[in-house]
Amino acid sequence: MAKPVKRHSNTAGLPPGTLVHVGEKKTEEVQITYLDYDELNFQEKQVSDISECFQFKATPTVTWINIDGIHRIDIIEKLGQQFGLHPLILEGILNTEQRPKFEDFEECIFVAIKMLGYDDQKQSSYAEHVSLVLGPNFVISFQEKVGDVFEPIRDRIRNAKGRIRKMGSDYLAYSLLDAVVDNYFVILEKLGEKVESIGEELIAEPTEKALHQIHSLKRELIFLRKSVWPLRELINGLQKSESSFIKESTRVYLRDVYDHTIQIIDTIESLRDTVSGMLDVYLSSISNRMNAVMKVLTIIATIFIPLTFIVGIYGMNFKYMPELEWRWGYGIVVLIMALVAVSMLLYFRKKKWL
Amino acid sequence: MAKPVKRHSNTAGLPPGTLVHVGEKKTEEVQITYLDYDELNFQEKQVSDISECFQFKATPTVTWINIDGIHRIDIIEKLGQQFGLHPLILEGILNTEQRPKFEDFEECIFVAIKMLGYDDQKQSSYAEHVSLVLGPNFVISFQEKVGDVFEPIRDRIRNAKGRIRKMGSDYLAYSLLDAVVDNYFVILEKLGEKVESIGEELIAEPTEKALHQIHSLKRELIFLRKSVWPLRELINGLQKSESSFIKESTRVYLRDVYDHTIQIIDTIESLRDTVSGMLDVYLSSISNRMNAVMKVLTIIATIFIPLTFIVGIYGMNFKYMPELEWRWGYGIVVLIMALVAVSMLLYFRKKKWL
Amino acid sequence: MAKPVKRHSNTAGLPPGTLVHVGEKKTEEVQITYLDYDELNFQEKQVSDISECFQFKATPTVTWINIDGIHRIDIIEKLGQQFGLHPLILEGILNTEQRPKFEDFEECIFVAIKMLGYDDQKQSSYAEHVSLVLGPNFVISFQEKVGDVFEPIRDRIRNAKGRIRKMGSDYLAYSLLDAVVDNYFVILEKLGEKVESIGEELIAEPTEKALHQIHSLKRELIFLRKSVWPLRELINGLQKSESSFIKESTRVYLRDVYDHTIQIIDTIESLRDTVSGMLDVYLSSISNRMNAVMKVLTIIATIFIPLTFIVGIYGMNFKYMPELEWRWGYGIVVLIMALVAVSMLLYFRKKKWL
Amino acid sequence: MAKPVKRHSNTAGLPPGTLVHVGEKKTEEVQITYLDYDELNFQEKQVSDISECFQFKATPTVTWINIDGIHRIDIIEKLGQQFGLHPLILEGILNTEQRPKFEDFEECIFVAIKMLGYDDQKQSSYAEHVSLVLGPNFVISFQEKVGDVFEPIRDRIRNAKGRIRKMGSDYLAYSLLDAVVDNYFVILEKLGEKVESIGEELIAEPTEKALHQIHSLKRELIFLRKSVWPLRELINGLQKSESSFIKESTRVYLRDVYDHTIQIIDTIESLRDTVSGMLDVYLSSISNRMNAVMKVLTIIATIFIPLTFIVGIYGMNFKYMPELEWRWGYGIVVLIMALVAVSMLLYFRKKKWL
Amino acid sequence: MAKPVKRHSNTAGLPPGTLVHVGEKKTEEVQITYLDYDELNFQEKQVSDISECFQFKATPTVTWINIDGIHRIDIIEKLGQQFGLHPLILEGILNTEQRPKFEDFEECIFVAIKMLGYDDQKQSSYAEHVSLVLGPNFVISFQEKVGDVFEPIRDRIRNAKGRIRKMGSDYLAYSLLDAVVDNYFVILEKLGEKVESIGEELIAEPTEKALHQIHSLKRELIFLRKSVWPLRELINGLQKSESSFIKESTRVYLRDVYDHTIQIIDTIESLRDTVSGMLDVYLSSISNRMNAVMKVLTIIATIFIPLTFIVGIYGMNFKYMPELEWRWGYGIVVLIMALVAVSMLLYFRKKKWL
Repeated sequence: MAKPVKRHSNTAGLPPGTLVHVGEKKTEEVQITYLDYDELNFQEKQVSDISECFQFKATPTVTWINIDGIHRIDIIEKLGQQFGLHPLILEGILNTEQRPKFEDFEECIFVAIKMLGYDDQKQSSYAEHVSLVLGPNFVISFQEKVGDVFEPIRDRIRNAKGRIRKMGSDYLAYSLLDAVVDNYFVILEKLGEKVESIGEELIAEPTEKALHQIHSLKRELIFLRKSVWPLRELINGLQKSESSFIKESTRVYLRDVYDHTIQIIDTIESLRDTVSGMLDVYLSSISNRMNAVMKVLTIIATIFIPLTFIVGIYGMNFKYMPELEWRWGYGIVVLIMALVAVSMLLYFRKKKWL
Repeated sequence: MAKPVKRHSNTAGLPPGTLVHVGEKKTEEVQITYLDYDELNFQEKQVSDISECFQFKATPTVTWINIDGIHRIDIIEKLGQQFGLHPLILEGILNTEQRPKFEDFEECIFVAIKMLGYDDQKQSSYAEHVSLVLGPNFVISFQEKVGDVFEPIRDRIRNAKGRIRKMGSDYLAYSLLDAVVDNYFVILEKLGEKVESIGEELIAEPTEKALHQIHSLKRELIFLRKSVWPLRELINGLQKSESSFIKESTRVYLRDVYDHTIQIIDTIESLRDTVSGMLDVYLSSISNRMNAVMKVLTIIATIFIPLTFIVGIYGMNFKYMPELEWRWGYGIVVLIMALVAVSMLLYFRKKKWL
Repeated sequence: MAKPVKRHSNTAGLPPGTLVHVGEKKTEEVQITYLDYDELNFQEKQVSDISECFQFKATPTVTWINIDGIHRIDIIEKLGQQFGLHPLILEGILNTEQRPKFEDFEECIFVAIKMLGYDDQKQSSYAEHVSLVLGPNFVISFQEKVGDVFEPIRDRIRNAKGRIRKMGSDYLAYSLLDAVVDNYFVILEKLGEKVESIGEELIAEPTEKALHQIHSLKRELIFLRKSVWPLRELINGLQKSESSFIKESTRVYLRDVYDHTIQIIDTIESLRDTVSGMLDVYLSSISNRMNAVMKVLTIIATIFIPLTFIVGIYGMNFKYMPELEWRWGYGIVVLIMALVAVSMLLYFRKKKWL
Repeated sequence: MAKPVKRHSNTAGLPPGTLVHVGEKKTEEVQITYLDYDELNFQEKQVSDISECFQFKATPTVTWINIDGIHRIDIIEKLGQQFGLHPLILEGILNTEQRPKFEDFEECIFVAIKMLGYDDQKQSSYAEHVSLVLGPNFVISFQEKVGDVFEPIRDRIRNAKGRIRKMGSDYLAYSLLDAVVDNYFVILEKLGEKVESIGEELIAEPTEKALHQIHSLKRELIFLRKSVWPLRELINGLQKSESSFIKESTRVYLRDVYDHTIQIIDTIESLRDTVSGMLDVYLSSISNRMNAVMKVLTIIATIFIPLTFIVGIYGMNFKYMPELEWRWGYGIVVLIMALVAVSMLLYFRKKKWL
Repeated sequence: MAKPVKRHSNTAGLPPGTLVHVGEKKTEEVQITYLDYDELNFQEKQVSDISECFQFKATPTVTWINIDGIHRIDIIEKLGQQFGLHPLILEGILNTEQRPKFEDFEECIFVAIKMLGYDDQKQSSYAEHVSLVLGPNFVISFQEKVGDVFEPIRDRIRNAKGRIRKMGSDYLAYSLLDAVVDNYFVILEKLGEKVESIGEELIAEPTEKALHQIHSLKRELIFLRKSVWPLRELINGLQKSESSFIKESTRVYLRDVYDHTIQIIDTIESLRDTVSGMLDVYLSSISNRMNAVMKVLTIIATIFIPLTFIVGIYGMNFKYMPELEWRWGYGIVVLIMALVAVSMLLYFRKKKWL
């Protein structure tokens, strides 16, 4: 899970458009791949020099350039010059703290989103900064490191499955967004399982560890929410944008992705409600236990304190205490004490403390 | 009641429009029925092959095709081809996790809603995914299993009761929506009774079981709210949509359904407030009981601890303790102790602890 | 005060427009009265047959037909046919659970509101369903039972006081709305007094009864709020509606009523804040009392427990305990105990527990 | 501070426009003054008969008529007839419970606001109902009693300071509004000081009195908020109104007043946050004290209870108890007890209870 | 950190446009500097007389006049006359309590913002009032004291770095805004570190000091939020304003700044959530400790109280107590007591109190 405030200040004061990579470097090598296709043709290649991709700018085929690793500023810069990208786009690609947004430029549409992942070791989700540049016949995608949720899309392009090979670059961009959004459900499921297992633990025994887990869950849900809320606006904006890059037929698909983001937000809110409820249950369990402890103390103390007083009386050393001399004094006192104890117990039963 | 996160991830990565049934299969057999009618004619038949229904596409009569069971993808696919349904409609029909929504297509209107049911054994409500496709002269409805709230509508069509036989397919679609929404009141009543009975139980005795019931009620209300909120937007959208499939005369009826959804939301909010109030009452009852326990302990302890001290004094074995030799020493000490006890009791009465 | 969920389900499944009376019957006899007036003429009559009122439909004078008791469906139906009312209006008149709303029809405006009353015996407010139908030269009002807040308006019409006799049916409808809204202030005042008296009680002594009263007040305020919120939208809607039945000169009066509803909402919110504050005061009073109880226990126990230990020491029966033989042993021990007690008391004073 | 619900019900049922003074009478005598000025001329006079002011209606000079005391309905009525004021304006002037609002009439603009004052004796703020009627060349202001925040404006007019003598009646109305709004800052400062002093008291010692003060502050802030919120809408509405009485050059000044109301709202919200924080601090101080009390009890009890048991053992009167005969029995027991006590203390230190 | 209510009242009652410096004087000397540049030329000079800057008003070059220290009203007034600034602008420049806003005048755009700083000694952030006046070819900036976040911008202008020298005055104004907003991240980072360090402290040991720190953090975040929220509207308004002073090409940059303010708000909300969570953790830690204390007391008391009672019995001085004479009486009693103690301990273990 993310820290609430990340280092962003190293860019403070720099002129806008200065290309600085913000965030930690998550990979050593930068990997560049392109897929170029139309309904009939298809080629895919991993290249070491970004300029190999420039040939496709002029062709009518759809080209998808994918770049894993965004710390090599020179590559981004070259690409920017070749495709005529606005300095703010380049800045947005490099700034891993960029809030999800889309920006409508004349020559292209820029989309920045968060791709979620789940770290099984740390038992928490993390976000990866992904940017898309959508032009009339190309999509360029930037990721922080190798490994993504786009493999099924590549397969569909390679094998000409579905309608993707017949559609334009806007449909490709939509498919990428859809893959990212669909993956949120996978993360939410993991969180859902975690919520359930902590919930069961809590009913069995409310420990302080559980409390810390509940709070960490809460923070994780807030973190997720922060990633999804702007996503919703983003996709709504894209769907309603007047850009000519997005065809009418693709908008209905974007509306579908929009519905998914709403569903994700609903699920997050449900989980938040559940977690809040767990906190309430925890707190009242604690107070119930306290109550039980107090009751035991009270019962024991209120029974034995008067009895101890009685035995104390006959432990006094007064010379003239007639009861001490009686033949059945001891027995009578024991009897009286038994009576006191029994009436106390009856009183407690009446009060429903037993 | 539903789990917060349901399995949805098995569709993640699939191309949009891939037909996969999401959710558990709730019935074995798929049951297909059609009703075809206009003001004068009427026929109803249960068919085993969906293609028997295709003849009605061209006729001017209103046709209602109802399909119980949505796991047979081939049936849905055939229907889709025949009626020219968009791939996203088919996906929406099959996805039982679909959030209530409506979508305006050129050739039809697609509506997805939740039909509520109440499981008397589990003592909780559940939702069934219902989809409607409204065309110029047909309505196709899809349900997860046999058994629904539409029987009165079928009766009205069969017996030509009310104005339904004189109206078009849009009025039929409205009638179906109205039936689903009206059924929410039935569920809310059951919940209302549950709330009341728990409330009474709580006043009699605040147990931890009641606390868990309150929390489960709270979750159930959140679940209901999640179903109704999008319904409200949906019906508002339908009523204001510019689709030519919905005639002006039907819109006033949709406005009426809209008012009902608002009333349902109001009722849910009232129940939520009541349940929250119950939680407060529970918590302060618990703390009041704690208080009562503490008071008993305090009264007993503060009366007897000083007395025990006094008897302890005269239990000391000092050689030279003049009081021990006195003739009335014992009596005086008993008297002093009685005085202490009485003044303590008076003090407690003054403090209103007794 | 109303239950959160009322029986509504008996209409579920019925065709829309089926006339069924929803709610309990509050009167036996249905009472029909009409007032017919213009600037110069005036007549008023209680009739037994609704058809006596139909003559006024065509006359240019303003006619106010008032019907007390809405369980006689035949009367409502006849009226509906004569005045050409939409089936949904008739349904709205009969449904006492109808949420406050107004609906703009071609031939008339339909308004449903809640008229509040206060039951002095049950010490709580209740709502009565009132409907108004406003046509070009008539107003028809429906109430659940005899007895209303409209008497001053009748007086003004009878005696030609104010400008009501010079104005049209829209001004009459406004006057009725205004009377209903003004009556809310009366109810709020009663509630305000209740809040104050409970508040004073609470400061004197925080009992569990007060807690229950606070919660019932809270529920009552929520109930009121539920009646007023839709009223606000209703009146705003009326004022801004494009209906030709409402003249420009009447709109400024509606704006005034609107201001009153806002003021009512403000007052309800203030009362809610006050009641919430009372709850906080109650809870901290309880916890303060607990605190006081604990302090007494602690002071008594911490003073006497060490003393009891000391006297216990010299109650031991060891053969060789030199102190026991001392001449001033007893005196010294008593002195030591006094010192312990005093230093304890000083410690408590320093800690501000005394 | 105001009661949550004031008497308003005595107007319920009256026809709208019936002139009734709502609220308590705050002054005996009604004081009428006028100021009449343009850039060159100026006259000011206190008159006993309102009709003396009517001469200025026709003159092009700006006239400001100020009336202190609104219980003389005849004066208001005469004025209304002369200046052609709508009955609802007159009602609004007399109703001291009127919510702040402005209303755009053809012949004038009506503004109702709350002027705040601070009662140093009761240590609380109060609101006075002030109404303004702005016409093409006059402003009439109504106040509940003598004494206001307008003196500096009168001075500016008398001495022709600033631009007020060169501007029209709209600028005068703006100046009055500005004076009222500026005075809110004075009240807020007083409240701010109160908040601070209670805050310091609270840190020194959390008493129940402080709790009551916090709650009364909270209520006072809610009361203020209720006065300012509608003010904000009011001024925004005025600034954006299409009335010809407000010149373009004055609107920028109204925008400035609007900014001030926003700042006042911000300040109130800040104070509310601070007060809420104080409540939290109070509650956790109380619970911390409770904690401290419990610790002392626990430490004393857990050290001495076992010791008392030990001395109890050797107080038993068994014939055969070898330890009692030992030469060093007493010494050994004292040693054991010292050991027990020390180890207890070490345990508590480890637990950080000491 | 700021007090909730600052002295503002000394301007109450003054005519609008009266130039009064509101707030404390933060510098003695007023420092005036200008930078004048276009793509080819550049000059920078610190002047002692403001009139030296007036020469640039007519030149087509971009001029940036910066004034550190706003208590010299004469300077501001002279500047205002020369550049034709509206009296409200001058008032806004001098009022250090001015809420962030922008105002569109005919001859210029006025922007008031808060520049944040961090006082390392007091460990808290503070705000400085900064105003910008943007004209067709000039920007005038006003600060409360020497020292700002604009140095990098001056460097860029001096060295002709980036595109600033090629752009107009609107780009300069944007750059200044961007520098101020970027600096918020620096402050947030410091706060973030503080939150983290308190969080760690809290887990180690929940002290009352930590509670006060949490509350002061909360207040600081509220203070920050109050500065940023209006900033967001401000920049949104600027970007969408129809002023001709802001060129189309600059708007995309303003949109970027807008995104940054949203991100800042998000971060503040995250921090607030974290701090709220810390408060919850603190409170439940406290209650857990209380619980632990109670358990120890209960265990000790419930074990020893019955034992003390038993030894009390055999401390009684009855003449006829057969057990006292038994040979193994003492041993048997000790055994019985051991049994009681062990069964108690087993009971506690079963209850999971040990």
